[in-house]
Amino acid sequence: MIKTDILIIGAGPTGLFAVFEAGLLKLKCHLIDALPQAGGQCSEIYPKKPIYDIPGFPEVLAGDLVDNLMEQIKSFQPGFTLGERAETIKKLEDGTFVVTTNKGTEHHAPVVAIAGGLGSFEPRKPLLENLSKFEDNGVAYMIKDPEVYRDKKVIIAGGGDSALDWSIFLADVASQVTLVHRRNEFRGALDSVEKVQELKDKGKLNLITPAEIIGLNGDTQLESVLIRKISDDNEELVLEVDDFIPLFGLSPKLGPIGDWGLEIEKNAIKVDTFDYQTNIPGIYAIGDVNTYPGKLKLILCGFHEATLMCQSAFQKIHPDKKYVMKYTTVGGVSGFDGTKKEAPKAVVKAIE
Amino acid sequence: MIKTDILIIGAGPTGLFAVFEAGLLKLKCHLIDALPQAGGQCSEIYPKKPIYDIPGFPEVLAGDLVDNLMEQIKSFQPGFTLGERAETIKKLEDGTFVVTTNKGTEHHAPVVAIAGGLGSFEPRKPLLENLSKFEDNGVAYMIKDPEVYRDKKVIIAGGGDSALDWSIFLADVASQVTLVHRRNEFRGALDSVEKVQELKDKGKLNLITPAEIIGLNGDTQLESVLIRKISDDNEELVLEVDDFIPLFGLSPKLGPIGDWGLEIEKNAIKVDTFDYQTNIPGIYAIGDVNTYPGKLKLILCGFHEATLMCQSAFQKIHPDKKYVMKYTTVGGVSGFDGTKKEAPKAVVKAIE
Ligand SMILES: Cc1cc2nc3c(=O)[nH]c(=O)nc-3n(C[C@H](O)[C@H](O)[C@H](O)COP(=O)(O)OP(=O)(O)OC[C@H]3O[C@@H](n4cnc5c(N)ncnc54)[C@H](O)[C@@H]3O)c2cc1C
Ligand SMILES: Cc1cc2nc3c(=O)[nH]c(=O)nc-3n(C[C@H](O)[C@H](O)[C@H](O)COP(=O)(O)OP(=O)(O)OC[C@H]3O[C@@H](n4cnc5c(N)ncnc54)[C@H](O)[C@@H]3O)c2cc1C
Repeated sequence: MIKTDILIIGAGPTGLFAVFEAGLLKLKCHLIDALPQAGGQCSEIYPKKPIYDIPGFPEVLAGDLVDNLMEQIKSFQPGFTLGERAETIKKLEDGTFVVTTNKGTEHHAPVVAIAGGLGSFEPRKPLLENLSKFEDNGVAYMIKDPEVYRDKKVIIAGGGDSALDWSIFLADVASQVTLVHRRNEFRGALDSVEKVQELKDKGKLNLITPAEIIGLNGDTQLESVLIRKISDDNEELVLEVDDFIPLFGLSPKLGPIGDWGLEIEKNAIKVDTFDYQTNIPGIYAIGDVNTYPGKLKLILCGFHEATLMCQSAFQKIHPDKKYVMKYTTVGGVSGFDGTKKEAPKAVVKAIE
Repeated sequence: MIKTDILIIGAGPTGLFAVFEAGLLKLKCHLIDALPQAGGQCSEIYPKKPIYDIPGFPEVLAGDLVDNLMEQIKSFQPGFTLGERAETIKKLEDGTFVVTTNKGTEHHAPVVAIAGGLGSFEPRKPLLENLSKFEDNGVAYMIKDPEVYRDKKVIIAGGGDSALDWSIFLADVASQVTLVHRRNEFRGALDSVEKVQELKDKGKLNLITPAEIIGLNGDTQLESVLIRKISDDNEELVLEVDDFIPLFGLSPKLGPIGDWGLEIEKNAIKVDTFDYQTNIPGIYAIGDVNTYPGKLKLILCGFHEATLMCQSAFQKIHPDKKYVMKYTTVGGVSGFDGTKKEAPKAVVKAIE
């Protein structure tokens, strides 16, 4: 059982920044995310696009913002349970919570902060009869660790940025990469499209378009896929592969959290703006996942909400301690890893 | 009369960021600040110190944060009335406001946003009999434009960062710089103290310590100051100068805003967290100057408050328009100067 002070569900920008604010209060955090990486929508949907309304950044790529946040929280050593969905919550007699994921991982904390954004990102799956049989046995909808595909024969399906970018990346890792898409046209960043064209021209990547995968074969492990060309004669071919990765996008679903007894309004969790607590004491909701009068689904608002939430969480965890806020500039930042950042001190020195 | 959509009182980080959020809504802003420069506390009190809790910045100097904000809002062309204190407010029949400064400058706007921080920064003045007579006639408490002192004989009093830094700066501009302080010890950044020592050693700066200025002489314009050494014999000397700049620090005072009929609690203006409006419709309060349950006087909170405030201001200014929020990443940023920033568009392109 993983134990922490604040269990954060969702490792988007809001959840990540909460780690920092909690750390200033000497509270430890652990984050659960259904995605294989941190960053929420910023990492999953638009990592290479610029955001213009993060205060102090005239322009910042969404992916860089996430990298910066990861750097900012590093010394507070957050724990991560990635690629798992928080599924159930149980309130213990002592008022603390146990949250269990779809893979059975248990987490125990006195405070739970839901920073679930628009919901847990779930893959759009192709409609194939025996798909679930091969899940984790050759079929994956997200790439957690590209090394898994080293020297393997991989087939990727999809026509967007993920399909393009992972095809490019795996061309250097896998022994064979085949990209299949229902149309000849791909939709993505110009340089990604051009790079795939180049890999194809150099024979480093097989391209089969317009085509779709219509069957999966194998005993317990995936062995081959059946591909149908979309053309007048609908030619079919069998391709031996180790792995099939359909990348048809992820769509967020509030999912199991919707059944936790929280007050929901317009698919979001109602909170009080005093501390962003929900109707269940000890459970907070911050960022895109919450709603209150005036709510805007913006990153900078999530930062504010995370900050006020941590103050309240501190009182809940330490009802007897009085916390006096200190500016970071004045008090510095003391990491849990023993590091300390602080402003250079003024000197008092005679001039003679 | 200066006319604008949102008149912002206080050009600290909160007021500055409000310009950006207003700009996204095509609303123009004008800022009034008692200080000669933008940036509020960040510029005035700790420009060279690092802040660690601005989201996305593991570390940023307060002065750099202000520079970044100025860059971020540049294309929205905010107007500035600097070095003047907002003194009175008048509500016109049509519900709009006229705000007048201590120097008589009038500003007219349908919405007023008070981003006044801890208050208007007012200089601590030395106790000298005929001081006020020489104000603006040789005595100044802040330096608006250092060029005013070119080839002049200047005497600076004070023992902190401002006194040190301006002495260093003016050593290159003025024909003569004299620094007077009540003690031999100065309190400031190590490199500033060392630089002053160096200038003194090279004869580029006169240092008179421990000493204080006890008299000012001149007809209408300042002509000389009387200095008393703090020593056993209390020697006195007269120094001919064009300018006397006492830099004893600035202290913020809520000041005239306290008398505008706004609900005040703990020296701050009460607001509703829905839109950070005060008890007077059309007047908002954002940043350090406001208070509400859970309030934290942090820069990142001011950013959030400014953002929600602008949505409400938009409705007030355009009661008939419906605003649909667009992410900056998606809609880009269209400056009032004709510039447009936007994310590179995805292409739809065949790979053959
Ligand atoms: C194309 C695009 C452009 C945008 N541009 C801007 C912009 O310019 N400015 C701006 O401020 N905002 C912008 N946004 C919105 C911004 O990305 C969101 O406001 C922000 O990501 C919200 O952060 P969050 O941390 O609250 O949630 P998210 O980023 O949505 O992260 C939530 C995370 O929680 C996880 N999660 C949810 N439920 C569970 C569960 N049960 N178990 C495990 N994990 C779970 C999800 O997988 C996800 O990773 C944009 C969004 C998009 C899609
Ligand atoms: C040493 C120090 C370290 C700090 N460290 C941190 C930190 O690490 N993190 C953090 O988040 N915060 C920190 N802060 C606090 C932070 O600086 C403030 O929260 C922030 O400056 C508030 O911004 P603001 O725009 O609301 O107000 P301010 O920065 O106070 O600006 C208000 C401006 O309004 C002007 N004004 C007020 N009334 C009038 C009037 N009637 N007419 C004209 N002008 C007027 C003032 O002159 C001033 O320039 C620190 C503060 C100090 C002093």
